Amino acid sequence: MRPKIYLFGDSITEESFGDGGWGASLANHFSRTVDVVLRGYSGYNTRWALKVVDRVFPEAESSGAAAPLAVTVFFGANDACLPDRYGAFQHVPLDEYKRNLHSIVASLKKRWPSTLILLITPPPIDEVQRIRYPYVENPLGLPERTNEAAGAFAKACVETAGECGISVVDLWTRMQHYPDWRNAFLKDGLHLTQEGNKVVFEEVMKKLNEGGLSLNNLAIDLPILSDIDHVDPLKAFQQ
Amino acid sequence: MRPKIYLFGDSITEESFGDGGWGASLANHFSRTVDVVLRGYSGYNTRWALKVVDRVFPEAESSGAAAPLAVTVFFGANDACLPDRYGAFQHVPLDEYKRNLHSIVASLKKRWPSTLILLITPPPIDEVQRIRYPYVENPLGLPERTNEAAGAFAKACVETAGECGISVVDLWTRMQHYPDWRNAFLKDGLHLTQEGNKVVFEEVMKKLNEGGLSLNNLAIDLPILSDIDHVDPLKAFQQ
Repeated sequence: MRPKIYLFGDSITEESFGDGGWGASLANHFSRTVDVVLRGYSGYNTRWALKVVDRVFPEAESSGAAAPLAVTVFFGANDACLPDRYGAFQHVPLDEYKRNLHSIVASLKKRWPSTLILLITPPPIDEVQRIRYPYVENPLGLPERTNEAAGAFAKACVETAGECGISVVDLWTRMQHYPDWRNAFLKDGLHLTQEGNKVVFEEVMKKLNEGGLSLNNLAIDLPILSDIDHVDPLKAFQQ
Repeated sequence: MRPKIYLFGDSITEESFGDGGWGASLANHFSRTVDVVLRGYSGYNTRWALKVVDRVFPEAESSGAAAPLAVTVFFGANDACLPDRYGAFQHVPLDEYKRNLHSIVASLKKRWPSTLILLITPPPIDEVQRIRYPYVENPLGLPERTNEAAGAFAKACVETAGECGISVVDLWTRMQHYPDWRNAFLKDGLHLTQEGNKVVFEEVMKKLNEGGLSLNNLAIDLPILSDIDHVDPLKAFQQ
């Protein structure tokens, strides 16, 4: 049975198998070694994610041999909705966000002690685009998310990773290293362009590699073409 | 547990999670309903596929509840290598190709009687590109695959589907309906461009829909955002 990597998160995970998406890129990279399993839930915050974590990862898939190699946990963009704008029902206070993330990580670590758990912070926010592309009618004309709020949640996410002793991709900080991050990486001020997806893919790959997950040390499923003898190909398929 | 769709095939399946790939597009389309599982093996013909089919779909994943919704079986491009060119070690005679496909289908039908099995024919071949982009040193300067040979295998694949009473995508014929199929759909005379991948995605989707697999009748994994009450969001997560 092939090992798995689960991608657990909100819409930025759910749409990660779109054209050039970071999830599809992971699946493509690990095409003969790992099943990359999509568990993205658009709009979810950590409060809702914590409610469903046991249903997302049911007991039947939790036994020893089936423990995944890694799980990415990518929440915070919805928690960081401002409490007095149209996304208020998705907002989670910062201290609860940290507690929820701790609980999600603890739940995963309890069932799979040796699985690499990788937190990903929310991306930065471009407020100009968020006003231009509102998700619902927005008569106030104010953004429902700000970059400052996203930054506070990103910082809390990085702190949580440190407290749990696990890896983290600080996407909020990483993306803002590029001068044109707003237009290069964000297609509506929140969701990612193909270039933005590429940043997530590359950062996740770095952390997986640092955690010992690379094509160099994963078993390849069935003989690869270059190992098949041209004179006696079936030799490769004797068990 | 989410239902699965397996993609079983050669390199055109293995690389189907690349940018704009047909496998990734399926995974994206079914992002909240179905796990699309990649089982592509570059260079494989039906002779080799038949040898490994029981390892690709192990018994442990074969029990009733875990029966996949569908399996795509996409071989023939390597069987159709000419027997006197550099791809000869991958060549399988036409009559054996048909027998092998029958055996693969029988193996899948035996373990999963109600699973939709979908055959896909090899794509057409552009011999000019195959000469321009040889996979190994090719001093002869002749293509290792021809469109005529691929067509014969495509015809045999369609016949096999009819004999088995299962669905088939006749990719060889479908692609050649477009005047500029060589450049639009093929990047090296065999493997698919993003446009070519789109054709496979659309044709596979049609057959899945005809077989009753569509978002209209698949269970969505966990409440979707538009069904979550803004005043009492947690109500949606009570079991």
